Amino acid sequence: MSLKAKALYSFQSENKEEINIQENEELLIFDDTSLDGWLQGQNSRGERGLFPASYVEVIRPRSNSSLTDTSVSPASSPRNGSFYTPDPPHTPSNHHGSYDDDDDDDWDDWDDSSTVVEEESRRGGGANGHAHPYQTPHDNVQYRPKLPLERQDSMSSAKRSSMVGRNLNRFSSFVRSGVEAFVLGDVPMMSKISETYTIEMGTRGPQWGANPRPFVCSIEEPIKQTKFKGIKTYISYRVSPSHTGSPVYRRYKHFDWLYNRLLHKFTVISVPHLPEKQATGRFEEDFIEKRKRRLILWMDHMTSHPVLSQYEGFEHFLMCADDKQWKLGKRRAEKDEMVGASFLLTFQIPSEHQDLQDVEDRVDTFKAFTKKMDDSVLQLTNVTTELVRKHVGGFRKEFQKLGSAFQSVSQAFTLDPPYSSDALNNAISHTGRTYETIGEMFAEQPKEDLYHMLDKLSLYQGLLSNFPDIIHLQKGAFAKVKESQRMSDEGKMDQEEADGVKKRCRVVGFALQAEMNHFHERRAVDFKEMMQAYLKQQILFYQRIGKQLESTLNMYDNI
Amino acid sequence: MSLKAKALYSFQSENKEEINIQENEELLIFDDTSLDGWLQGQNSRGERGLFPASYVEVIRPRSNSSLTDTSVSPASSPRNGSFYTPDPPHTPSNHHGSYDDDDDDDWDDWDDSSTVVEEESRRGGGANGHAHPYQTPHDNVQYRPKLPLERQDSMSSAKRSSMVGRNLNRFSSFVRSGVEAFVLGDVPMMSKISETYTIEMGTRGPQWGANPRPFVCSIEEPIKQTKFKGIKTYISYRVSPSHTGSPVYRRYKHFDWLYNRLLHKFTVISVPHLPEKQATGRFEEDFIEKRKRRLILWMDHMTSHPVLSQYEGFEHFLMCADDKQWKLGKRRAEKDEMVGASFLLTFQIPSEHQDLQDVEDRVDTFKAFTKKMDDSVLQLTNVTTELVRKHVGGFRKEFQKLGSAFQSVSQAFTLDPPYSSDALNNAISHTGRTYETIGEMFAEQPKEDLYHMLDKLSLYQGLLSNFPDIIHLQKGAFAKVKESQRMSDEGKMDQEEADGVKKRCRVVGFALQAEMNHFHERRAVDFKEMMQAYLKQQILFYQRIGKQLESTLNMYDNI
Repeated sequence: MSLKAKALYSFQSENKEEINIQENEELLIFDDTSLDGWLQGQNSRGERGLFPASYVEVIRPRSNSSLTDTSVSPASSPRNGSFYTPDPPHTPSNHHGSYDDDDDDDWDDWDDSSTVVEEESRRGGGANGHAHPYQTPHDNVQYRPKLPLERQDSMSSAKRSSMVGRNLNRFSSFVRSGVEAFVLGDVPMMSKISETYTIEMGTRGPQWGANPRPFVCSIEEPIKQTKFKGIKTYISYRVSPSHTGSPVYRRYKHFDWLYNRLLHKFTVISVPHLPEKQATGRFEEDFIEKRKRRLILWMDHMTSHPVLSQYEGFEHFLMCADDKQWKLGKRRAEKDEMVGASFLLTFQIPSEHQDLQDVEDRVDTFKAFTKKMDDSVLQLTNVTTELVRKHVGGFRKEFQKLGSAFQSVSQAFTLDPPYSSDALNNAISHTGRTYETIGEMFAEQPKEDLYHMLDKLSLYQGLLSNFPDIIHLQKGAFAKVKESQRMSDEGKMDQEEADGVKKRCRVVGFALQAEMNHFHERRAVDFKEMMQAYLKQQILFYQRIGKQLESTLNMYDNI
Repeated sequence: MSLKAKALYSFQSENKEEINIQENEELLIFDDTSLDGWLQGQNSRGERGLFPASYVEVIRPRSNSSLTDTSVSPASSPRNGSFYTPDPPHTPSNHHGSYDDDDDDDWDDWDDSSTVVEEESRRGGGANGHAHPYQTPHDNVQYRPKLPLERQDSMSSAKRSSMVGRNLNRFSSFVRSGVEAFVLGDVPMMSKISETYTIEMGTRGPQWGANPRPFVCSIEEPIKQTKFKGIKTYISYRVSPSHTGSPVYRRYKHFDWLYNRLLHKFTVISVPHLPEKQATGRFEEDFIEKRKRRLILWMDHMTSHPVLSQYEGFEHFLMCADDKQWKLGKRRAEKDEMVGASFLLTFQIPSEHQDLQDVEDRVDTFKAFTKKMDDSVLQLTNVTTELVRKHVGGFRKEFQKLGSAFQSVSQAFTLDPPYSSDALNNAISHTGRTYETIGEMFAEQPKEDLYHMLDKLSLYQGLLSNFPDIIHLQKGAFAKVKESQRMSDEGKMDQEEADGVKKRCRVVGFALQAEMNHFHERRAVDFKEMMQAYLKQQILFYQRIGKQLESTLNMYDNI
């Protein structure tokens, strides 16, 4: 039985199984049970397909008049009007032979919170391009531990806040992340801290202590699967961590869940962005391949990071192959208290003295570096993107045109048989085909080299886009130190408390420096690898062209 | 003392030493003695420079009122209004150390006839692009021997013309060339024929008898020379024929004189076109180089042609290094009677029977072949021209952009010194420079391969453009045979006379087939060489790129 509904917002179809709906449009709904936030129905133009449940209001036949409170939306409401695009539909997953369909909804009900979109906005943009820069984060509370335990500091926050000014901009990352609260001593020590991350002094300053159980993780075999009688399709990846030896199967949305846990928890760490979401064409071979390549790079960065790689939620993601256990682990990760500001409590920092001004100078240098690196990575990305376009377009076209012109000459030469030399005609015709092949080789070459470069650059665009906020945290902390020291000098604050602010600021400074150090280390490794891989493939490419031409040239020898 | 003059036509400056003049514009002339058809003066906008003497009328101070009969133009009047551009100025030549300035005018006075432009129009266009397609050839009489000798045929032309119809289109090449007259027996045998050209039966039909004294000829060292206190500049080439061992120095206009003698004389032979005339930028390095390359190809084709290479005027051009002798030889060549239709009298043809229908079929096949070859040569020329443009433009730009993006990344990496690796930064920066170099290599590569291809193709465009007219000659002759045979069958013509027409048509047919044969032979040799040269250079090119990249890749080894 079909129901009537009214569109609350306009929705633009981005997949062939979806349909457009206009604000205030009357719709027919075939079944008011939404599937992962999507409804199936028909718009006023007779088009049938899916649209987001949260964009419409079902008009129940029994209360025909009311347009209130009848929305079936299980997902968050769109907040930015008609330009807001919902996350890709969260369909119940069908994991590669592990679970049958009945378990899907259960497996997938971690998606029923709306934290994904909210938390994405925290980083304020970056490579994903899905955050809304003008959107206000209204869930700051989530970054604070929900159960304040016994505080370790001697002064109440009420007292302190009257002495050291709080940042007026409650949307600054310094405030939102809870780092201000941490520096001011407002973040209580936990009674029991199960995890600790060490920061050591290395030759280039503070660095993360290595993961005691390092591992790598491969991502393979994206497998296309369908459900809802073929209406919905999704891709499942085989994820094989080296330290367990047994693969798990994960969909993009599982990565997305993990990514949002990481953002939630890891203050002062540049969490690598996931490869872009893409509404259109997300089941095309090229897109699947690209997403796989970029998930691999993302995973490499995750496993190489001494802190991220030790995260319990990550371990759960890599190991859990049982749906009950999955749910438990998911809940546990979502209830983790050592997130945001509290995460800063988990650091064990070296005792070495560091002059705070020196730290600030290092951070300033790093800031200038990231700005320039961000510019140059963008420049290289643009050039490379254009070069891909040229390979597939202009280069191919020119060589193919040359090839077909040679063939045309060869054909002309056959037209006067008594004077025609088959050997010459064949050689010229073969030369034509060779240049057509070379055109194809140009078109295919980006898959061998430029794509890889673009993947790496995209990862670094994401990492670099995180740093302004992270650096802002340290800047804010440093300002608090100066402020509290001045107050202490003026006798308006206990020296002990000022020292506490300074001590906690040291933690932030050490953590940021460790992260800077890690970024630089990876950057050197990654760019060396990227350049080498590119040059190797380029050499092979030009050698292959040379070989093609050599065997073609040989055809002229016995004419 | 300066004179006033009035511009009869507008002239567009095409060189920096020239100035624009507008029709009816008043001009000042510094000296009314024209230099090779050019005057020096000043236009109404105060610009000083050269303009064609024939475009203006000098207003003599002593007869201030008259605008008649005072033109100082020593050259032909422009015939096509304001869009007519005169030939490149004919400045007295200063031959590479052979003659002093005083002798120049003497040396150059072969230019005072206006046959150049008129004769160029005979071929009706072609690669030179300077002929005027709507211009009527009004000098047909020049193609006939000036002193009709005792006729060898038994019937008067008056009688015959009443029996076998003459072509109504007196501008068709058949009529203009004199071949109609020859076939109809109107061209009298000379009393003494000093030159003969043999046509033999080869494996592929009639072919030219080889030049008994074959030779080659190099063209080197284009030397820029100036005169008129630097106002005029010209280029002189060293021309070294292998059979004399001593070089002569020739300017383009000397080639042009020879070319026009060839056109004048060699009916049914496809005379290779000279490289294009070019008014603008004709002293730029690139143009000088291009003209030299194309003159070399032109010369190769001349020396390879069994008939053209034996031409007395050619021999004179290749050998004469004395100005008096030059003048004598020039006059002799210009008085040659065995030109046009009479040239057909110089052939000794084989006695083998050839069915005229077979000949016509062969010619038809050849005609279809030349049409298709002309198309494909044009196609290849266009593709190649565009490819040159891409090499110099797009390809270079893309690689240079990639190079500078790499360098930008390298610069970013130096900005955080404690974490910066000189070795990596240098390697990346070097990679940037390598791609800039590769960009330059792409831009320079056409000089190694595509230019040569374009030169060859241009030669063949010229040769092919001659064939429609040449084939038309044979078609006309064949029609005359059929017509006279029909008249003979109907008793309206003596069989003897019809046989005469047939016999002379055989001469035309043999000559055309020999020329077809020669064209095919050269075409096979030339295109094989062209393709091999192109492929060889392409292989070297891609190998060089590979080498560049390999040594760049090595820089990453010890990082």
